[in-house]
Amino acid sequence: MIELVAFDGDDTLWHTESMFALTQQRFRELLSPWVDPQLIDERLLATETGNLQLFGYGIKGFTLSMLETAIELTDGRVPSSTPKELIDAGKAMLAHPVELIEGVEEVVEALRVDHRLIIVTKGDLFDQESKVARSGIADRFDGVEIVSEKDEATYRRILEEYRVRPERFVMVGNSIRSDVLPVVGIGGHAIHVPYPVTWSHELVEPEPELAGRYQVVSSIAEVPAALLQAAA
Amino acid sequence: MIELVAFDGDDTLWHTESMFALTQQRFRELLSPWVDPQLIDERLLATETGNLQLFGYGIKGFTLSMLETAIELTDGRVPSSTPKELIDAGKAMLAHPVELIEGVEEVVEALRVDHRLIIVTKGDLFDQESKVARSGIADRFDGVEIVSEKDEATYRRILEEYRVRPERFVMVGNSIRSDVLPVVGIGGHAIHVPYPVTWSHELVEPEPELAGRYQVVSSIAEVPAALLQAAA
Repeated sequence: MIELVAFDGDDTLWHTESMFALTQQRFRELLSPWVDPQLIDERLLATETGNLQLFGYGIKGFTLSMLETAIELTDGRVPSSTPKELIDAGKAMLAHPVELIEGVEEVVEALRVDHRLIIVTKGDLFDQESKVARSGIADRFDGVEIVSEKDEATYRRILEEYRVRPERFVMVGNSIRSDVLPVVGIGGHAIHVPYPVTWSHELVEPEPELAGRYQVVSSIAEVPAALLQAAA
Repeated sequence: MIELVAFDGDDTLWHTESMFALTQQRFRELLSPWVDPQLIDERLLATETGNLQLFGYGIKGFTLSMLETAIELTDGRVPSSTPKELIDAGKAMLAHPVELIEGVEEVVEALRVDHRLIIVTKGDLFDQESKVARSGIADRFDGVEIVSEKDEATYRRILEEYRVRPERFVMVGNSIRSDVLPVVGIGGHAIHVPYPVTWSHELVEPEPELAGRYQVVSSIAEVPAALLQAAA
């Protein structure tokens, strides 16, 4: 029997990565007169990864990493308007309307009849709270956990807080690294709902022995059926 | 009887604002060849305040606001090294060692004998978690609440979570706006421990009728005595 179902936020309940991808495309366009486009992507990812330890996840850190990469790659040759454009791009991301992924509302309505539902999302506290509030579906959930990292310790703490045993817990999300592996690692269930775009940092190849320890579905609409299977 | 004592983090348990002030002084120096120093402070505060709604509190938002202010005030006339220096200044703040305020360890040790203690701090989730971890005193507390805003709703939620009535709760902190007024507003006790430097945004003049509804002490070492009075 499944008691508690947790949903990831970004790219599981609402679109996010497509907005990052569009901003990154604009970033590439701004720098491409000066730098080889492939190098731009490589260096931005390297800068982001290097900064994770100080910045954590989220749009503000991403914006600072874009600025840092632009300065580094162009050695100050970009027009003075570029830094301003990058800050504005970050602000536009923060102010962007929250677009629910198709099928989310129906699935949440269906599952809340028999389960406690929560959101477990990582990133900037302020930005994530704002997105949850603007999503219009916050009141369907029994709790919202905004965390700085999704590792086994985080999921253990959440299960303790909600007093649920791992075998009665299902995590639904788009990231193998954050939503699947640590949950399976502590004995819980995971349902992977891939999103068309995944940030390179989140891309991992699961170990072969994990095949069969979690389910993959092609859209959130298939989650209720997968849940029945997890409970079986 | 007081059951739960909450401490603010920044500038109550550990130094923060002095680090912001030093960074802002460097910011002023960097821009002063181009701009009147007084205007620099005014515009930075205006930019920060305008950005709060998108960025929330914290060092990453402050760094982005410094960058934005620098671009705006100098119209691109600053040397190309300046944006890089500002990003580095933000990173240095994030990496800065956590320095406990004198007397904190003794007071925490003394109070934990008879009270549950928690930390209630606002700002970037990742940065605050990192500071709590690096403070070396995290294990003396029964909980850490990192919040995006300290208003009455936030304190009500925390008291519910810890199942404590407002009259059995004391908040200790350096900000009238964040640590005193909302706590007094919901019927709790507050002890104000002013810090030598206060961010302009946090400066408020409490209404005259609030005089006598909270205590002011000159250092954290006086908190245990003030607590006895609150409990009386």
